[in-house]
Amino acid sequence: MPDIDPWGDVEIGNYKQKMKDFGIEPITDLEDKLPDSHLISRGIIFGHRGLDEFLEAKEKGREVAMMTGIMPSGVFHFGHKSVVDQILMYQEMGAQITITAADIEAYNTRNMSLKETREIVIEEYLTNYVALGLDLEDADFYFQSEGGNNYHLRSKQFARHLTQNEVEATYGSAAPSKITSALTQYADILRPQFKENGGPKPVVVPVGVDQDPHIRLTREIARKYREADFYKPASTYQKFMRGLQGGKMSSSDEKSHIALTDSAEDALQKIDQAKTGGRDTLEEHRKKGAKIEEDMVFELLAFHLIEDDSELERIREEYSSGEMLSGELKQITKEKLENFLVEHKQKREEARPIVKQYLQNR
Amino acid sequence: MPDIDPWGDVEIGNYKQKMKDFGIEPITDLEDKLPDSHLISRGIIFGHRGLDEFLEAKEKGREVAMMTGIMPSGVFHFGHKSVVDQILMYQEMGAQITITAADIEAYNTRNMSLKETREIVIEEYLTNYVALGLDLEDADFYFQSEGGNNYHLRSKQFARHLTQNEVEATYGSAAPSKITSALTQYADILRPQFKENGGPKPVVVPVGVDQDPHIRLTREIARKYREADFYKPASTYQKFMRGLQGGKMSSSDEKSHIALTDSAEDALQKIDQAKTGGRDTLEEHRKKGAKIEEDMVFELLAFHLIEDDSELERIREEYSSGEMLSGELKQITKEKLENFLVEHKQKREEARPIVKQYLQNR
Repeated sequence: MPDIDPWGDVEIGNYKQKMKDFGIEPITDLEDKLPDSHLISRGIIFGHRGLDEFLEAKEKGREVAMMTGIMPSGVFHFGHKSVVDQILMYQEMGAQITITAADIEAYNTRNMSLKETREIVIEEYLTNYVALGLDLEDADFYFQSEGGNNYHLRSKQFARHLTQNEVEATYGSAAPSKITSALTQYADILRPQFKENGGPKPVVVPVGVDQDPHIRLTREIARKYREADFYKPASTYQKFMRGLQGGKMSSSDEKSHIALTDSAEDALQKIDQAKTGGRDTLEEHRKKGAKIEEDMVFELLAFHLIEDDSELERIREEYSSGEMLSGELKQITKEKLENFLVEHKQKREEARPIVKQYLQNR
Repeated sequence: MPDIDPWGDVEIGNYKQKMKDFGIEPITDLEDKLPDSHLISRGIIFGHRGLDEFLEAKEKGREVAMMTGIMPSGVFHFGHKSVVDQILMYQEMGAQITITAADIEAYNTRNMSLKETREIVIEEYLTNYVALGLDLEDADFYFQSEGGNNYHLRSKQFARHLTQNEVEATYGSAAPSKITSALTQYADILRPQFKENGGPKPVVVPVGVDQDPHIRLTREIARKYREADFYKPASTYQKFMRGLQGGKMSSSDEKSHIALTDSAEDALQKIDQAKTGGRDTLEEHRKKGAKIEEDMVFELLAFHLIEDDSELERIREEYSSGEMLSGELKQITKEKLENFLVEHKQKREEARPIVKQYLQNR
């Protein structure tokens, strides 16, 4: 399995320092036990905490679960897609899938109404999740606002095990809205272990490093809460795709992302304008090759558009040797992207009634 | 209606200042519209905020409600009984009665398990409430831990309308346990107005002045919460009986209180030892009369053991003129107390299966 790293040493360097700081283990230690996925081989998932316990339980045929949340922030773009790729990976491994729509958090921290959140979650997120392959029937999807009496009760009980200091150190304030959102999130993370969901079991939560404090506090609470024998939740850490112009990919900045609902025309236009790692002159490019780690188009290919590792490796070699030009790379990407978007649009249409029916039947 | 004040000017002075500070109106303004109760005539309920709106609605035949909470703290003593007297007064007026058992609060702020709280609430509180005359069938009694999804959801939504500053100014800290308890309490107070409970209506909450900050914050939240048209809850303010030795009546200090489950023998012994307002010598007593406001035995009579205002007035006159001696007052009290306790014991036995059945049928 080639260990392709589309970001080069600069970014990896950053992540390595963060990993050390937070006590996160490199995912490479567990590579043998993980499925053959581009998420692992390309280092998109680069670290973990406690995933060994999860994998051992899985190996022994015990129940395991994967939990993730939807915090709606406008359109669903390729930056969000990695989460779904991870859900699919764990669903294929046979893990129970729990997905929470964080409408209480959106209400409290983003001033969004429950109704508004619900509409975005269904139309932008859930429909895309199903279109991308999520088997909803086999998942526990719920809105926080409908989590049930015992779910809310437990989230309130967790308050006993959390100090104002911890909250302020972690979230920068002890505002009631922040505390309520955090406590609700701990209940989300521990929910697959509730007795009504089959009881304690190893659970993995895929996050970005910025969300690690949630995980650490939830692990503390799992340990302190005497009313159940919760496993401490495991976590994996993923790299975030950068925006098409470099810098951060953002839902509010149209040019930084391609939404999965963008028209092919708009999307291809964005590729044309995307930041590449090509050199200033043809001569220089041929001589030095592209700076792969600064190429946002290659990043899109690596994250989402090329499944086959050897195909990606070939492109990387040609491009970084200078044999392939940025225009050629963009051409390849545009073809793959257009195919993806056209096909995905069709799948979204098919997904919509499935989602509707699922929500009605709950 | 005589306006008997068993505490004299000293205590009333304190309360008057507090009323002014907090914007509380004197209850005497509304005396005509209130039932003929020793709670009013003796100034046990001395102030209110917003009760006029409640009484007007009642007069017009509209639905009104009264809400109170049980925070279990050991045995149920005469200091707790005034709350039940108030419940009965409002129940007779035709108000919906809502009673919450604050088990989430006890869990978070007193390290009590839900089970432990439940047992005390049922055995010590609910059974005594019913023995004292509460019609449980006609009340909405619930444990916070079983409040239901929408109750918990709303309490979490209230977080958006509360700042860390408000919490710290009111409760002295923004600890998650405090915040969670407070938010849950706001949901308790507003619960009679939830749409599943018949929607918005005037609600009165009888409290002590020390609990007024809860009321003020709940009124703020009722105003700010856009998802329902809540009335701001009204409140009444009651005086607390002092302990039998003077000072604070406390559940943890045996000598300070008489529990409604005390044996007659123990209880009479406590009366013998109680602090009186009698003078040092017989001669002085005959000359100056008793200091009524320092007499804990008279306080017990006035709060709980004499219903008839004219009977109490006669005793007050005889005692404060020096005609009646402390020993005589104690003798009268002991007879009434023994009768009460013996009768109450019987009523408790009758109440127990009623409570059991009520809880099973919910």
